[in-house]
Amino acid sequence: MATQANSVPHPILVEVDPFIPADQQKGLHNRWHPDIPAYATVKPGQVFKLQCVDWTGAQIGNNDFSDDIRNVDLTKVHNLSGPIAVEGAEPGDCLVVDILDVTPFEKMPWGYTGIFELENGGGLFAKEFKSKAAKAIWDFKGVYATSRHIPGVRFAGVSHPGLIGTAPSAELLATWNERERGLISKDPTAVPALAFAPEIKGAYIGQDLDPEVIKKIASEGARTIPGREHGGNCDIKNLSRGSRCYFPVFIEGANLSVGDLHFSQGDGEMSFCGAIEMAGVITLSTSVIKGGVEKFALKQPIFMPSPVDPLYSSKLIFEGISVDIHGDGKQYDMDATVAYKQAALNAIAYLMKIGYTREQAYLLLSAAPIESHVGALVDSPNACVTLALPLGIFEHDILPKEEGLQKIDFGQCAIRSDGVV
Amino acid sequence: MATQANSVPHPILVEVDPFIPADQQKGLHNRWHPDIPAYATVKPGQVFKLQCVDWTGAQIGNNDFSDDIRNVDLTKVHNLSGPIAVEGAEPGDCLVVDILDVTPFEKMPWGYTGIFELENGGGLFAKEFKSKAAKAIWDFKGVYATSRHIPGVRFAGVSHPGLIGTAPSAELLATWNERERGLISKDPTAVPALAFAPEIKGAYIGQDLDPEVIKKIASEGARTIPGREHGGNCDIKNLSRGSRCYFPVFIEGANLSVGDLHFSQGDGEMSFCGAIEMAGVITLSTSVIKGGVEKFALKQPIFMPSPVDPLYSSKLIFEGISVDIHGDGKQYDMDATVAYKQAALNAIAYLMKIGYTREQAYLLLSAAPIESHVGALVDSPNACVTLALPLGIFEHDILPKEEGLQKIDFGQCAIRSDGVV
Amino acid sequence: MATQANSVPHPILVEVDPFIPADQQKGLHNRWHPDIPAYATVKPGQVFKLQCVDWTGAQIGNNDFSDDIRNVDLTKVHNLSGPIAVEGAEPGDCLVVDILDVTPFEKMPWGYTGIFELENGGGLFAKEFKSKAAKAIWDFKGVYATSRHIPGVRFAGVSHPGLIGTAPSAELLATWNERERGLISKDPTAVPALAFAPEIKGAYIGQDLDPEVIKKIASEGARTIPGREHGGNCDIKNLSRGSRCYFPVFIEGANLSVGDLHFSQGDGEMSFCGAIEMAGVITLSTSVIKGGVEKFALKQPIFMPSPVDPLYSSKLIFEGISVDIHGDGKQYDMDATVAYKQAALNAIAYLMKIGYTREQAYLLLSAAPIESHVGALVDSPNACVTLALPLGIFEHDILPKEEGLQKIDFGQCAIRSDGVV
Amino acid sequence: MATQANSVPHPILVEVDPFIPADQQKGLHNRWHPDIPAYATVKPGQVFKLQCVDWTGAQIGNNDFSDDIRNVDLTKVHNLSGPIAVEGAEPGDCLVVDILDVTPFEKMPWGYTGIFELENGGGLFAKEFKSKAAKAIWDFKGVYATSRHIPGVRFAGVSHPGLIGTAPSAELLATWNERERGLISKDPTAVPALAFAPEIKGAYIGQDLDPEVIKKIASEGARTIPGREHGGNCDIKNLSRGSRCYFPVFIEGANLSVGDLHFSQGDGEMSFCGAIEMAGVITLSTSVIKGGVEKFALKQPIFMPSPVDPLYSSKLIFEGISVDIHGDGKQYDMDATVAYKQAALNAIAYLMKIGYTREQAYLLLSAAPIESHVGALVDSPNACVTLALPLGIFEHDILPKEEGLQKIDFGQCAIRSDGVV
Repeated sequence: MATQANSVPHPILVEVDPFIPADQQKGLHNRWHPDIPAYATVKPGQVFKLQCVDWTGAQIGNNDFSDDIRNVDLTKVHNLSGPIAVEGAEPGDCLVVDILDVTPFEKMPWGYTGIFELENGGGLFAKEFKSKAAKAIWDFKGVYATSRHIPGVRFAGVSHPGLIGTAPSAELLATWNERERGLISKDPTAVPALAFAPEIKGAYIGQDLDPEVIKKIASEGARTIPGREHGGNCDIKNLSRGSRCYFPVFIEGANLSVGDLHFSQGDGEMSFCGAIEMAGVITLSTSVIKGGVEKFALKQPIFMPSPVDPLYSSKLIFEGISVDIHGDGKQYDMDATVAYKQAALNAIAYLMKIGYTREQAYLLLSAAPIESHVGALVDSPNACVTLALPLGIFEHDILPKEEGLQKIDFGQCAIRSDGVV
Repeated sequence: MATQANSVPHPILVEVDPFIPADQQKGLHNRWHPDIPAYATVKPGQVFKLQCVDWTGAQIGNNDFSDDIRNVDLTKVHNLSGPIAVEGAEPGDCLVVDILDVTPFEKMPWGYTGIFELENGGGLFAKEFKSKAAKAIWDFKGVYATSRHIPGVRFAGVSHPGLIGTAPSAELLATWNERERGLISKDPTAVPALAFAPEIKGAYIGQDLDPEVIKKIASEGARTIPGREHGGNCDIKNLSRGSRCYFPVFIEGANLSVGDLHFSQGDGEMSFCGAIEMAGVITLSTSVIKGGVEKFALKQPIFMPSPVDPLYSSKLIFEGISVDIHGDGKQYDMDATVAYKQAALNAIAYLMKIGYTREQAYLLLSAAPIESHVGALVDSPNACVTLALPLGIFEHDILPKEEGLQKIDFGQCAIRSDGVV
Repeated sequence: MATQANSVPHPILVEVDPFIPADQQKGLHNRWHPDIPAYATVKPGQVFKLQCVDWTGAQIGNNDFSDDIRNVDLTKVHNLSGPIAVEGAEPGDCLVVDILDVTPFEKMPWGYTGIFELENGGGLFAKEFKSKAAKAIWDFKGVYATSRHIPGVRFAGVSHPGLIGTAPSAELLATWNERERGLISKDPTAVPALAFAPEIKGAYIGQDLDPEVIKKIASEGARTIPGREHGGNCDIKNLSRGSRCYFPVFIEGANLSVGDLHFSQGDGEMSFCGAIEMAGVITLSTSVIKGGVEKFALKQPIFMPSPVDPLYSSKLIFEGISVDIHGDGKQYDMDATVAYKQAALNAIAYLMKIGYTREQAYLLLSAAPIESHVGALVDSPNACVTLALPLGIFEHDILPKEEGLQKIDFGQCAIRSDGVV
Repeated sequence: MATQANSVPHPILVEVDPFIPADQQKGLHNRWHPDIPAYATVKPGQVFKLQCVDWTGAQIGNNDFSDDIRNVDLTKVHNLSGPIAVEGAEPGDCLVVDILDVTPFEKMPWGYTGIFELENGGGLFAKEFKSKAAKAIWDFKGVYATSRHIPGVRFAGVSHPGLIGTAPSAELLATWNERERGLISKDPTAVPALAFAPEIKGAYIGQDLDPEVIKKIASEGARTIPGREHGGNCDIKNLSRGSRCYFPVFIEGANLSVGDLHFSQGDGEMSFCGAIEMAGVITLSTSVIKGGVEKFALKQPIFMPSPVDPLYSSKLIFEGISVDIHGDGKQYDMDATVAYKQAALNAIAYLMKIGYTREQAYLLLSAAPIESHVGALVDSPNACVTLALPLGIFEHDILPKEEGLQKIDFGQCAIRSDGVV
C-alpha cells in the first residue's frame, strides 16, 4: 500500500511495563556510575524513544489512600531508562539533546503528587507541617490534568523529564561522593537526611553484568536524588518537551539516562514528590559538538526552553523575604530558600482562604505550573523571592475582591487509611 | 477652545529636580518611620504622579569613570517620594495600588548600573570578584535602553519602582530593628555588613518638622535597603508599570512611599546597584479594601503583573546548583542563593566567551530582563536555580554553534579613573 | 498489581487504519446530512478518542513525487470520523467540546502539504501561479516537524482538526445547498469551481444503512469543503489541542464529526492542502448547555484557544493592501482577500531572496505557524492585512541586514515525475 | 551640577499644540506629494521626537455628545507631522524606522473613538447600522485606558501611529491617483464614497511655500485615507512603540511623515474612527540600507513587532464566514471582508447579551486590543476569519456559563444631542 511505504515509527530503545516493579525489568538503573554499560547506542541525528516507569518503579497506586506513599522504599529510586551511548561523543564534548516529546502511556492516563512523611522522604515543609503521607491522583485528559483530590483546577502540562543526565567520569563521581559525605558528616542522623551516600540496598542496574561489576556500581554509585554538574535530577519544569539541552560529556559515548517523567510541576517542586509523577515515553534526538565544554564554558547543562510551554499570562504573585514570618520571625542572611518558603506559605494561606486544605494547597503548588522568580539577592539582609499562581488554571475567579474571597468546600486530598494528617 | 475643555493633567503630588541633591528638596525621605507625616493625601480612585530622584539623590553622573560609584554616600539612600496618605485606609486594611506608569524625566534620558566596591555597598559577587567600582551608563530611547559601555545589546525596559511600601507601625518597626540587630550582632564588623541598623547620619525627612520628631525618626527609622512585610525595597522587576499591588496597611492613611525607579532590572539584581537606576515619574492610583489583611491572609504584598512586560520568548538558560562549582567545590545544604550564584557565574563565563569582560557581563545580567526561576528545592542536598538570557536583546546570534562562539571586542565598561578593576 | 488497578485507557470510539482507503472502513463519512446516524454515543463529561484517516483517505504517499497530488480524487473528501451523539443534546443547545489532544499515529510519523493543480483543487494562487502539483513531506519528531523538501526550518505544531462540526438540520442543509448553488450558477464552469454542489460520486457513509437512505444522503448531503454555521472545515489553526469550542446544536444528539487533522497550519492555509495533513487520533470530551444558542447569541461556533499553542515572539511581518501590486496594479474595494494575497506574495518574494523556490515558499507559508492579522478594513479603498513569519522556526537569521540577505540553496520540493512545475 | 552634565533631551523636530486647529500650525500637512519639502532633516541613528495633533486636528472634544463627530470636516484629515528627511536616503533604499515610543501629551490625558455618520465618514457597518454619530471618550491612566462611556473594561494600550509613511515619487503618486479614480468612476456617487480623489478644499501644507507649489500639491496630492505601498494609513495596531519598520524610499531624503496616533486599536478598526485617537508625541530613530528595495524585494513596508505589545493570553474567539448570516443570508465568494464582518457581528451580539448597547460594542471592538486572524482562504466558497476578545480587559467574567450570561446595565456611549442613535 502506497501510503504505508516509508512509514517507519521511531524506534523504542527501552521498553518497560509501568505496572511491573522496576527491578524486574531490563534497561533500567537507579544509580550513577561510569561502569554501567550503554544499554543501547544511537547515531547523532537519530530520533528514538525510551519508555520509563514512574520514578518509584510502580510503588504507588491510583486509589484514595496515601499508605503507599507512607511506605515507599526510597532506596530504589529513581528508576532511569538507559544509559544510551551516542556515537562519537567523548569527554569534553557537548551532547545536544532535543527533548522532542514526553507523554504518558495510553494505558496509564494518570499520575500522582505526594507529600512524603517527615521520616521517609520529607519535603520542603516536612518539619514545619510534621508531614504525614498524603497524595493526589491526577487524571490525564490530553494536554490537561485534573484531580478528584483537588477539585476546581485544570491545567495544561509542562511535561518534562525530572531527571536527565550524562554519566559521570570516575573522577567526577568521586568528587560528588566526597563532597556529599562531607555534608552528611555534619549531622549524620538528621531527619530528613542532609544528603544520601551510596547505598547497596535497593541498587539496581538492569543489565546482566559480572556480579563484581554490579557490586562496585552499587557500592560506589551516586544516588539520584540531587541534580549535579551532569544534569541529573534537576527537576526543572521548563526542560520540557520541545526544549533543547546542552550537556557536558564525561565519558566515552556520553551515556545518557533519563527518567522521573513529570506531567507537570511547579517551580520549586515543594512537596518533594511534588510534580505529577508519571510513567510514559520520552522521544529524543541528539548531536555532538566536539570540544563543546571548552567552547561554551560548560560547567553544567544549559538549555533553550520550548515554544509550547503552557502560557497563562494572568497571575497572582506572592512575595517572600528571608525572614521566617510564618514561624518564629527569625532573620536570615540573604537566604533565597527561606524567601521561597515564605512566599509559598503566603500562597498556601491564600489558597486556604478559598477553601483548600493545607495539604491540598501544598500539593497544588507543587504540581501546577507555578512560576517562582528570584526577585533580588542584594538587599541585605533580605533575599526576595516571588511565587506566581496562574489564574487560568482555576475554574472560578480567585482574585482579591472588595467583599473578600469566596470559600468553597473542596474536600480533602488522599490521606492515610488511619486518618492521620 | 473646545478640545482644551476637560483636559486635566494628572496632578503631581511630589515635584523634584533630578539634578539637585535629594536632601535639598521637599517631599523626599530616606528612612521608614510611622511618625513621618503624610506629605500629601489622595482619595481612593484618584490618579496622581510622584516625581522621584534616582535612589542616590543625584550622586552619580553621566560620564565614563566610576569614581562617583566608588565614593557614593550610602547613608543617604534610598530617597523616597512621599509619604502619600490614602483617605479611609486604616490598619488591617489592604491598600490596592495600581502602578500605572513609570517613566524617566524627559530632560534626563539616561540611567546607570553600578558595581559597588566591596567596602562600600558590595554586591552578590563583591567578595568573589573583590569588586572595584564600575558602571554602565544607559541611554533611554523610548521603550529601549542601550549603553555605550556594553555594546551589542538593546532591550525594552520592564520599568518599575525598586522600592514601594506602606509605612510600618511602631510595633512593626521595632520588630524589624530588633531582628536585624540580632543578625548584625553575629558579625558586627562584616564587610559588606550583614544588615544596616538605624543611622542618624544621612537621615533625611524632607518636611519641616519639630527637631525632636526628626531626631526620633532619624534614630529609630528603619533603613531602606531590604524589602520587608510592607513591601519596601523588594526590587521585583515585574512589579512594573501596569501591575496592581495589594499592600497591608499598618497605620492610619497607609502612608505610601516610593522611589528607586528602575528602567530595567534582571531577576536577582546581582550587582547590588544592578538595575538601570533612574530619576523619573511614577503614576499611581489607589483603592482600599477594608479588613483586607484578614480577608486575604496578607502577611506581605501580593500583586498582579502587567500585560506590557517585555516578552522575549527565545532564551538560553543556565543551571546552577548549591555547590560552589566556580570556587572551592563546597557542598551547601539546599541553598538557593548559592545555586543562583552558580547559574549566574555560568552565564558570566558564557558571556565572556562571546567577548564581554567580566564586569560588563556582571552589569548586563543585573540590568537586562534576565529571568531567574527556582527549579527545585527538594532534591537534597542541591537546590537548583536557573537563569535565562533573552536572546532577542542581543544584536547577534549568541546560541551555541558547532564551530564555537564568535568572540567580539566589546571594549570595557566605565571603570575608576585610576584604572583599577 | 496495585498500580494497574484503575488504569483505564480512554475509549477509542472510531478505529481506523491510516493505510487503508477510507471507503473500505467503518465510522467514516464524507458528506454532511442529518440522516447519517450516530456511529457512537457519549455521555457529557466522558473523555474519548476518535481515530482519523488523513483528509484524502490514504491517497497520498511518503515519496518524492507529486503525482498522487495531481491525481487525487476530490469527490471522496473529507473523510470524517463519527458522527458521535451526545446524550441530552437538543436543537438550540450549545455543545461544549474540549479538544484535549491531537496526535499523529505512532506508526505514521509523517504528513504532507500539497499544492494542487489549477484543474484539480486549486489553491489561493492557483491562477496566478498556474499551479502544477507539488508537495512537501513533513517528518514528525515529537512536537516538531521538519521536511526534506523544505530544509532550513523546524517548528512546533499547532495541531488541530481542520474540520469539526455538528450535523445540520434538514432546514439548515437546504439553506446551504440553495445559497451555494446560487453562487455556482453565476459561473458554473469556473476553474477552480466557485463552490461544490452535492455529488453522489464518491459519497461515503461508513455505516450499513438502507440503500434508500444512503442514496438520499449522497444526493442531498452538503460537501465538506467550506466551513459553515456548524463549524465544519474552518481550518482555524488555533482551534488546537487544548482549546474549548462552543457549537450550536441543530439535531437531537448534536452528532459531532471530525477529521482533516493538521499537525500544523499557517493562517490562511494558502495552498488549499496547505496544512500539514495527517492521519491520527483526536481526544475529546463534551458537555451540553441547554438553550445555549439563545443564551450566547450563537450563530456560529465560538472558542477559547489553547495555552499550549506555539509561542514565537520574534516575527517579521509583511503588509498587503487591496491593490494587485504583484499583478496588474488593479484597485479593489476594501477587499481583505486581495490584501491577504498581496501580503503573502510579499512574503514569498522575501523567502525567494533567501533561497527558497516559489513552490517551497508557498508550501512553507501554508504549513508553518504563520499569523495573519486583519490590519484595518475601513480606510477606503484599501483593506490592509498582515502576514507574520515567526523567526524562531528558521535555522538561520533571516532578518534584513545592511549587506542584504544570505541566499542558500534549499533545493526544491517534491514535484511531478514529468518534471513540470 | 555633575548629574546634569550630558543630560541632553531628545530634540523635538515638530512642536504643536493639540488644542489649536491643525491648519494654524507649522510642520503639519494632510496630503501626500513629493513636492512637500522636508520640514526637518535628521542623520541616521539620531533619536528625535515629533509632536502630533489628533488626526482631525482638534475638531473633537472631551464631552458627552457626539455632535462634533457628526459635523467633522474630513477634507482636513489626516494631519501629519513632517516630512522629515533622512540624510543619505535615496530612491531604492530601505529606510529603517524605529518607533521608539508613542505617548499622549501630559496635558491631554484622553482620546476618543467615534462612530461616523453614514453620510460623513461611515465605517464598516455604516450601512447595516445606518450609523448616526456616537463616541466614547477614553481616559489615559498610564499604560491603561478606561471610558465613562463604556464601563466595565480597562486595557493596556498598544500605542502606535495609525499613519506613517515615506513620500511617494511623482510616478507613484500618479499611479495612486489613476487607480483610485478608476474605482471611484464605477460609482461616483456612492455613500460612503468608494475612494477619495485629490481635493483642494481642506488641503494644508504647513510650510511657507510658493502659492503655485501649494496649489500643485493641493490639486494633485493623494488623500491620506488609505494605506498604500509607502505605508501610510495602514492602521496596523502592532506597528506599535517598540517596533522596527522597513520602508521603501521613493524620493531623495525619504521624507517620512507620521500622524494619527492611536492609544489603542483593535484589528480591523471597525468603526472607521475606531482606534482611540489621540494627540501626542512619537519618538523615532532611523537608518538607511542602500538598495534595500531590491535586497529585500520590498514592495511594501515590512516590520518587526514590539516586545511590549500587551499580552492577554485568555481569549474568547468568534468565527465568521463569507455568508451574510446576520443579514440576507447571501453567499459570497471567498470574501474575507464579509467573513470579518460576520465574526464582528457575532461578537457584537455576544457583547449585547452581557449588557452593552450595539454602539458600545461596536466602539469597544474597534478600540480594544482585539485580534482578528484570517483562518482559511481556500475552502470554497467560504473565507473564514476569527475575532478574539481578550478576557483580561473585562472587569467581570464574560465566559459562557451553564446559567447563561450575566447582563449588566452599562448605560450608553455619547450620542448626538438630539438623541438620535
